[in-house]
Amino acid sequence: MAKKIGFIGLGIMGSRMAVNLQKAGYDLAVFNRTPEKAETLLKNGATWCDTPAQLAEDIDVLFTMLAHPEAVSRTALGENGHLDSLKPNTVWVDCSTVNPSFAKEMAKEAGKRRVRHVDAPVFGTKKPAQDGTLAFFAGGEESDVEAIKPYFDTMGSSVKYVGGHGMGASIKMVVNVMLGQNIVMFSEAIALGRSLGLSQDMMFETLLGGPMAAPYLSIKSEKIKEGLYEADFPLKWMHKDLHLVAQTAFENEIPMPSANAIKEIFAKAEQAGLGEKDFAAIFDYIGSDK
Amino acid sequence: MAKKIGFIGLGIMGSRMAVNLQKAGYDLAVFNRTPEKAETLLKNGATWCDTPAQLAEDIDVLFTMLAHPEAVSRTALGENGHLDSLKPNTVWVDCSTVNPSFAKEMAKEAGKRRVRHVDAPVFGTKKPAQDGTLAFFAGGEESDVEAIKPYFDTMGSSVKYVGGHGMGASIKMVVNVMLGQNIVMFSEAIALGRSLGLSQDMMFETLLGGPMAAPYLSIKSEKIKEGLYEADFPLKWMHKDLHLVAQTAFENEIPMPSANAIKEIFAKAEQAGLGEKDFAAIFDYIGSDK
Amino acid sequence: MAKKIGFIGLGIMGSRMAVNLQKAGYDLAVFNRTPEKAETLLKNGATWCDTPAQLAEDIDVLFTMLAHPEAVSRTALGENGHLDSLKPNTVWVDCSTVNPSFAKEMAKEAGKRRVRHVDAPVFGTKKPAQDGTLAFFAGGEESDVEAIKPYFDTMGSSVKYVGGHGMGASIKMVVNVMLGQNIVMFSEAIALGRSLGLSQDMMFETLLGGPMAAPYLSIKSEKIKEGLYEADFPLKWMHKDLHLVAQTAFENEIPMPSANAIKEIFAKAEQAGLGEKDFAAIFDYIGSDK
Amino acid sequence: MAKKIGFIGLGIMGSRMAVNLQKAGYDLAVFNRTPEKAETLLKNGATWCDTPAQLAEDIDVLFTMLAHPEAVSRTALGENGHLDSLKPNTVWVDCSTVNPSFAKEMAKEAGKRRVRHVDAPVFGTKKPAQDGTLAFFAGGEESDVEAIKPYFDTMGSSVKYVGGHGMGASIKMVVNVMLGQNIVMFSEAIALGRSLGLSQDMMFETLLGGPMAAPYLSIKSEKIKEGLYEADFPLKWMHKDLHLVAQTAFENEIPMPSANAIKEIFAKAEQAGLGEKDFAAIFDYIGSDK
Repeated sequence: MAKKIGFIGLGIMGSRMAVNLQKAGYDLAVFNRTPEKAETLLKNGATWCDTPAQLAEDIDVLFTMLAHPEAVSRTALGENGHLDSLKPNTVWVDCSTVNPSFAKEMAKEAGKRRVRHVDAPVFGTKKPAQDGTLAFFAGGEESDVEAIKPYFDTMGSSVKYVGGHGMGASIKMVVNVMLGQNIVMFSEAIALGRSLGLSQDMMFETLLGGPMAAPYLSIKSEKIKEGLYEADFPLKWMHKDLHLVAQTAFENEIPMPSANAIKEIFAKAEQAGLGEKDFAAIFDYIGSDK
Repeated sequence: MAKKIGFIGLGIMGSRMAVNLQKAGYDLAVFNRTPEKAETLLKNGATWCDTPAQLAEDIDVLFTMLAHPEAVSRTALGENGHLDSLKPNTVWVDCSTVNPSFAKEMAKEAGKRRVRHVDAPVFGTKKPAQDGTLAFFAGGEESDVEAIKPYFDTMGSSVKYVGGHGMGASIKMVVNVMLGQNIVMFSEAIALGRSLGLSQDMMFETLLGGPMAAPYLSIKSEKIKEGLYEADFPLKWMHKDLHLVAQTAFENEIPMPSANAIKEIFAKAEQAGLGEKDFAAIFDYIGSDK
Repeated sequence: MAKKIGFIGLGIMGSRMAVNLQKAGYDLAVFNRTPEKAETLLKNGATWCDTPAQLAEDIDVLFTMLAHPEAVSRTALGENGHLDSLKPNTVWVDCSTVNPSFAKEMAKEAGKRRVRHVDAPVFGTKKPAQDGTLAFFAGGEESDVEAIKPYFDTMGSSVKYVGGHGMGASIKMVVNVMLGQNIVMFSEAIALGRSLGLSQDMMFETLLGGPMAAPYLSIKSEKIKEGLYEADFPLKWMHKDLHLVAQTAFENEIPMPSANAIKEIFAKAEQAGLGEKDFAAIFDYIGSDK
Repeated sequence: MAKKIGFIGLGIMGSRMAVNLQKAGYDLAVFNRTPEKAETLLKNGATWCDTPAQLAEDIDVLFTMLAHPEAVSRTALGENGHLDSLKPNTVWVDCSTVNPSFAKEMAKEAGKRRVRHVDAPVFGTKKPAQDGTLAFFAGGEESDVEAIKPYFDTMGSSVKYVGGHGMGASIKMVVNVMLGQNIVMFSEAIALGRSLGLSQDMMFETLLGGPMAAPYLSIKSEKIKEGLYEADFPLKWMHKDLHLVAQTAFENEIPMPSANAIKEIFAKAEQAGLGEKDFAAIFDYIGSDK
């Protein structure tokens, strides 16, 4: 019998992931804080639920893709939250970017209710979400990750089991701190070069694709040249992720002076009104004299 | 008639560069603060000079490869310096890593004496120096850079003309700040991941060669695994380069909070005794609890 | 009729505060994770309670003085927590250093149970706690703060009402970030001066008590001269407070690059094993070459 | 016979210092890059000199009060510089804020010409300069400092001999890094407090004059309340001083992560156009959302 999938969180990423599950023929029950974002899915047969609790009642697996730990906590444990309504042995796959200690806490809360928790953050932004080429790194029970592999295969091109509860969230922290830092230091380097009279084009040509530049910078350079910064990954979420990194570092007694310095550059840029733009807009913030 | 080349500065890099010039058949006059380093070159026919001034008297082109601006200034303008003794229209190619304002000052001092100055820092470390596969970025008069291209071709695999005096030094600042920052943020990220229970091997496998990691980190990861950190590029010179970057940023009124934060991490690591090791040793410094 | 006071948290500060309440003739019920710390109080007539819940049943006002928000949350809402057992209209005064959003959350949880919450962190360390000369800054309902003024007068020399729920915690963040930063920058300044050949004694004499130095540094300088750093305020709590500051700054979208930089210096010092020493030990950490 | 004093550098500070010397009856020869600033002094009998060299020919003691090391170097050693024209045994007192290694270099250059060098930076701003209540910290030969004490007494209320050449400049670095850091951290703390709903007036009242706040902040708070920031000490010079501190720290292998972080905040504020305002304007920069 076909499984029924619950999907909570239909933002930039979640909506595209849900569409791919639907296209693959899965029956979807959906919830989102702003119902408008569900329209296309509903038109194509998904069931709308008024609360996470209602959604939880009749599904076999639940995916959540939310903006931050607070949002996950609210949908799971808040009023009409999903956790008390899920059937025993349902697998709840949280694809949101959350800090590892939070993921472990959710796994514990799930466990109390005999719900199985997998933390499986996604790697990739809008385009791979749409194309179904995301990469997942999953933490939890290996058998659970194995069992839900077909769903991952629908939304992404790879899933890697990285260990027990919270390990997916952990590798996400490691990757995202590199994501955030690379663009900042590249922006500072180019700003310096421009002030010295070097042409930006020449520097891009010299650095991008070369040994000193993380390859993803080549992709972001398109946004920089264009100057519009339509958000694939909004700057405010990058700031939030760096905050989660800093919190995790504190909890684990790891000094991260560089990551914290970069966090504050994003803080200033967000304060300057760039939060909704793609995080590559930090390039303009750093290079401007505002 | 064959040209005679002067070469001052026979350290890790300079000695290998000079050997390649010698192998190509050029006649060399050499000077180094510690004469021992010249032995092999002398055995193979190079001429020893007791001072930069003496060396300068009878050469057609001069290469300098020194540790920092102060060393360049001393050999050029100090007692028995080379600048007052070079013949008019000699080209002085400074391959040292210096800050752009210093390179311009040297070009000006050279100009006063009708000496032609090219700032042509090298990209690459010990191995490419030995193999003659360095990359040069040259600033100065384009015709001068053109004229000395055969020498660059002997020591390296590419030379790029980037603009007027100081422009070679400028691109070097841009590149080296990225070189220094990447390894720091990679080290912080891995330290965080380890504290969360992720295996270092898994993280290396996941990150290196991927979109978030500058490709040169794959090379440095060999040193990290080995743990010996024999210096291709000593940590103290990286610290010095970041200091030159900070100075240049100040002169050009460019804020660089990230680069300055990283500079201080290298400062602490140097204070902790790691100055002579390869700068990749910052990985151990950041990851340790010392 | 005499009021009965509950007191949870008998560490460096709490034990001294409780003693002053007892000396003033109040009847105390106490709880502490490690019962040994309650011995003197019990000998002098205080009642031991096995859990916060048990303690909460029969008291008129509750004071908590705990190490961090997690500890407060555990004693309030964890298994056998106090919040479900307090009688309606009991005032719970939390003197712990917590972040403002946490204080507001506790006030909300208290309100749900008709318990009255006051956040009243203390200013002052071991000695003022012992002498009953602490300063309190209180947030909550003004009438509640007024009602409990006699207790504050017993433990301290001043209490200031600063506004609604969370405002006491707020001013604590403001003060403690200054406390943490002053000692770091003083330490850096002195380390620089020493490296230049200035005598530490001369610098202390010149700076302390002068216009550039926060007056509390004069007191800390005694610990510095002595070199033992017996904890009045352990470095690990200062690190924790700066973490709470950073978290609060994130929640309120306030960039704090300086505070975050200092936080990481404390992080490194704690990692180096200085967590249990007085936070003035950061002076030695910064000045050493370890 | 009355001594003749040379004075070079008639900015905010220098002009007021020279007036006090003149009022005390000393015969002055003056030079300034922009002659207009000398008008009052000339009207009252000072002699104008067209170059530092000309000024140097007929004086018994020379005071310089210039903006940065480059300006001092230019007036001393540049074209028509003063150093080659001073009579043997003349004392050159440099009151400019310069880095210690530069002060030592100047002392060495002076020594080569049998000129006696004293580095005596001033502590205090516009008002004390006008009132003749500056404090001087002097480095050099003790007998030279003793010999020129009468001049210091005219311009200031105290002079302290702190050691050999460069020691005056050294204590200045120590003091100014504290000056710069205090205002930044105070500004961050207040910005945080405001975001939490605390009133700025209440925080000023609570903190200023208290144990956590450097006393000079009380004076700067007047500028903050006024909001005009007429420069007693321009922000750009504070930025420059922090740069000299960072340079000195590098030369002496002292890590200063906090000072460097603060330096970059001033860099950003200067880039935002606040360079000519008093450095207390950093308060508005940090507190704004620009």
